[in-house]
Amino acid sequence: MPNMTNRPTVPALEEILGELFPVLDHGFVRVVDYMGDDLSVVDAARVSYGRGTRRVSEDRNLINYLMRHRHTTPFEMCEIKFHVKLPIFVARQWIRHRTASVNEYSARYSILNKEFYVPEPEHLAVQSSTNRQGRSDMLSLDEAVTVQKLLTDEANRAYESYELLLNDDGTGKPRDEGSSMLARELARMALSLNFYTEWYWKCNLHNLFHFLSLRADPHAQYEIRAYAEVMLDIVRRWVPLSCAAFEEYRLNALTLSKSMRAVLARMLAGEVVTQATSGMSSREWEEFKTGISLSV
Amino acid sequence: MPNMTNRPTVPALEEILGELFPVLDHGFVRVVDYMGDDLSVVDAARVSYGRGTRRVSEDRNLINYLMRHRHTTPFEMCEIKFHVKLPIFVARQWIRHRTASVNEYSARYSILNKEFYVPEPEHLAVQSSTNRQGRSDMLSLDEAVTVQKLLTDEANRAYESYELLLNDDGTGKPRDEGSSMLARELARMALSLNFYTEWYWKCNLHNLFHFLSLRADPHAQYEIRAYAEVMLDIVRRWVPLSCAAFEEYRLNALTLSKSMRAVLARMLAGEVVTQATSGMSSREWEEFKTGISLSV
Amino acid sequence: MPNMTNRPTVPALEEILGELFPVLDHGFVRVVDYMGDDLSVVDAARVSYGRGTRRVSEDRNLINYLMRHRHTTPFEMCEIKFHVKLPIFVARQWIRHRTASVNEYSARYSILNKEFYVPEPEHLAVQSSTNRQGRSDMLSLDEAVTVQKLLTDEANRAYESYELLLNDDGTGKPRDEGSSMLARELARMALSLNFYTEWYWKCNLHNLFHFLSLRADPHAQYEIRAYAEVMLDIVRRWVPLSCAAFEEYRLNALTLSKSMRAVLARMLAGEVVTQATSGMSSREWEEFKTGISLSV
Amino acid sequence: MPNMTNRPTVPALEEILGELFPVLDHGFVRVVDYMGDDLSVVDAARVSYGRGTRRVSEDRNLINYLMRHRHTTPFEMCEIKFHVKLPIFVARQWIRHRTASVNEYSARYSILNKEFYVPEPEHLAVQSSTNRQGRSDMLSLDEAVTVQKLLTDEANRAYESYELLLNDDGTGKPRDEGSSMLARELARMALSLNFYTEWYWKCNLHNLFHFLSLRADPHAQYEIRAYAEVMLDIVRRWVPLSCAAFEEYRLNALTLSKSMRAVLARMLAGEVVTQATSGMSSREWEEFKTGISLSV
Repeated sequence: MPNMTNRPTVPALEEILGELFPVLDHGFVRVVDYMGDDLSVVDAARVSYGRGTRRVSEDRNLINYLMRHRHTTPFEMCEIKFHVKLPIFVARQWIRHRTASVNEYSARYSILNKEFYVPEPEHLAVQSSTNRQGRSDMLSLDEAVTVQKLLTDEANRAYESYELLLNDDGTGKPRDEGSSMLARELARMALSLNFYTEWYWKCNLHNLFHFLSLRADPHAQYEIRAYAEVMLDIVRRWVPLSCAAFEEYRLNALTLSKSMRAVLARMLAGEVVTQATSGMSSREWEEFKTGISLSV
Repeated sequence: MPNMTNRPTVPALEEILGELFPVLDHGFVRVVDYMGDDLSVVDAARVSYGRGTRRVSEDRNLINYLMRHRHTTPFEMCEIKFHVKLPIFVARQWIRHRTASVNEYSARYSILNKEFYVPEPEHLAVQSSTNRQGRSDMLSLDEAVTVQKLLTDEANRAYESYELLLNDDGTGKPRDEGSSMLARELARMALSLNFYTEWYWKCNLHNLFHFLSLRADPHAQYEIRAYAEVMLDIVRRWVPLSCAAFEEYRLNALTLSKSMRAVLARMLAGEVVTQATSGMSSREWEEFKTGISLSV
Repeated sequence: MPNMTNRPTVPALEEILGELFPVLDHGFVRVVDYMGDDLSVVDAARVSYGRGTRRVSEDRNLINYLMRHRHTTPFEMCEIKFHVKLPIFVARQWIRHRTASVNEYSARYSILNKEFYVPEPEHLAVQSSTNRQGRSDMLSLDEAVTVQKLLTDEANRAYESYELLLNDDGTGKPRDEGSSMLARELARMALSLNFYTEWYWKCNLHNLFHFLSLRADPHAQYEIRAYAEVMLDIVRRWVPLSCAAFEEYRLNALTLSKSMRAVLARMLAGEVVTQATSGMSSREWEEFKTGISLSV
Repeated sequence: MPNMTNRPTVPALEEILGELFPVLDHGFVRVVDYMGDDLSVVDAARVSYGRGTRRVSEDRNLINYLMRHRHTTPFEMCEIKFHVKLPIFVARQWIRHRTASVNEYSARYSILNKEFYVPEPEHLAVQSSTNRQGRSDMLSLDEAVTVQKLLTDEANRAYESYELLLNDDGTGKPRDEGSSMLARELARMALSLNFYTEWYWKCNLHNLFHFLSLRADPHAQYEIRAYAEVMLDIVRRWVPLSCAAFEEYRLNALTLSKSMRAVLARMLAGEVVTQATSGMSSREWEEFKTGISLSV
């Protein structure tokens, strides 16, 4: 039963409030609560610029201007709280973002469920030989099935050990009366890193954009990117103008170094520049060419 | 016209949303937006403790437990945004709290109003000779009136200089056609520290409690305490259980050092302890006696 | 070969710079670098208090005063960098302290060693039935040996799976020519939470004290407390005055709630107070009695 | 007299440790202490990448790579502490960087000196009519002299009021025996925003780069830029490789939005694009042309 409020409210987000969006095989993202909308960003900016802001500036232009010129504080005025279920190894990457508030399911207090992540064959990739942190080609289907089985067996065995150590019949009483129940904070160490955990994760819009710029990026590990992409869709619903500005000026933007700028100026002046004459390393030259969509 | 929402909503806070609460002579505090309520704290804690939390724990007990044992993260799950008008010297103290989001009226962009703080006689105190950061007795009424006049004249003159430097007729055109309009970012430096500024200030409940524990404390300068007290009243409306726990376990709590604990144990065992036999400095001994309401 | 510097230098800490202090079965803590000493705290405080600080205040008294009155910013002026090797489940607790800088060994880039934590029998405790996050009695030696074997076997099997998935002969070439080498970022998910990781962890003294106040506390899980205790010893060497103040006014201090203060005042006035007449819950009453060393 | 240390030491920075670098008319910057060097960045990165880092990567390349790919955490491993004297209105901008540690001279405790900032004629600029936060042409010399006089008179008068309110003869005794000494925390409000304050300001290298990217930028107000430029010179001495990477990949880099990238690709394919056919606003078009040094 809905409540009445005088706070800024976003109907498109209200529609999906609390809804579970599945991610990976057992994970999800859902919005628990939020504060503010695109106008909250605009209002905060107008407090800063005061009478100096011409009212004719439309909201969209103002938001674009803020994003383009890194006036980031107005985007801190919106806040969102997610409930996320995610594998522990993903949680370990995610938690490195220090500007959020987190309450995680504690395996010191409670028993973790038997739920673990096993990648689909299309995400089982070979270690890249050129990029230390990347993936390369996919495994063959046969190999993928073998890997899935190995991961599944391993996790099943780990959970069996966990249950044996806990010796809890589910009601806090020993399953096997003859043995002790190991402290939960110790038993958990038998579990593997693909087991699922859960948390509430609360963040302001500016910091969320920072998170998304790193984690919705193709260089991010697929498993965390899968979460980031669902969250990006949610942000589009929540603050469409701010999110469009983020995609235009940050997510899909290109940063050219001082040297790249000089090379580009030579190109635009008509010179044909090659890697040899650019002064860049081959790696930078590749990044540069890809960035400016140079086909040659 | 109110909106419909599925978010946690606090009717007692909705009632005063946007309302200006006057502070000092021209300042105010008003709530612009908020997120969460007492139950949001409880929910976050239950995510952490999971199935380990017995439902019989009532919300109030759980909140008290969290506060008592410094489980602070669930209190980060609530957020509030204030609009505050305050003298610049108060803003300078306030901004030292680094965990909030702020958008301040910018005197680089816009012209500050002619509004400045002049303390009431009952707040015009003599420098304490024992406590370097404190106030002592009040001025006599005659002296107070003299001080008020001096501060008023000084601020009026400062604003006159500011206007002269700006040379702005209020529409962005020169008042005196014959002279230039100095850049606003420079002109502002003529203003004194009692002029009012404004900001949006957004903070989570945990950090707000920290702010209040320092600024609603009798050792805080009166002028910032005046704001903290209004905000404390607002927090009581917003999250009554959390705020009661904060007042019980932090704001009105007493911290006894290791040595004080030892002295107390001797007292409770029946020994009559004096400063001489306590091993404390006279300053600590006074703090100790006051803390435990010892009359002798 | 040592360097010459004009920076504050602490001979007692220089002595152990870089030295490995073992923790748990394969972990360690070592100091990589540091900045500042007790005098740096004093200097920063004197900048704040300026000419208002009487030189007669001795350094020790000033440091005690700062700690007692929660003037925390001068303690932020010292910084320390540790290199730590620790089990992943400990790293997961530790990382919740968001105010540090961290560079962790990345299993996306590199292969983890076959090193995992197995508790000694004296740390293998039964789940407490009264305190959800605590340990109770120790296991019998027989049971302890069984648990150790189970954890060891489980970790050995997990590492076998990890190696199978990686299929890396140690030089970046496949061990088994006929199969693919799974991406490292995926293979790692087979490992269990007792495997060791490493990181550089850098923190200022104020935040380190906060960390120690929570993690050197008897309520902290033994495994992280083992690290905190080694670090506390190191801090004693580094900033002896600040650390003594921390132990006196925080680590071994007692916080009495508003109600506890009232009960204490009644006791000191001669009244015999029991739980029934105290108005406290039995849990709080126990905490109170323990805190003030009341034997009855 | 120098100390012996086993910590990383930077001779070029040791040379100027403690030296006052003048900024504006009475301000300064000096380095009080530091921790780490370029190799500390490299070491931290190698902890992360572990055995995956080929030793053949030279330090310079690794640092460039980190900067280019926003691997920012290794830069957090260096720390620097400055002592800065600066006008209050500059301090108000500066303090918005929340990731530093600060101890500021407190006018609650102590009396501020009679030192205030008066800009040189070449920095007395007219308010820009197109850019709300910018400066435009300089004042004529005659006008500049008038403004200087006005600011000087105003500050002198303000300090006179301050002294009258304090009524302190410099030794903590009343100058005028017949009147009271107003509390310092109140008297300070008569001072204007160009009075000088001082602080210790401590920051890690990553956050310092962020500060410099905003404050050494031509859009920053001249007065804070003057500090940033001195600090940038100091950083060049301290961590030459990291600072060069910062200048190459961030300070002098250009960010092209998604639309700008598309327009650039059309240009490089030989199309002549004008503002009209670019789809950009005239403001963005100007920024784009300037950014890529397009003369037409």
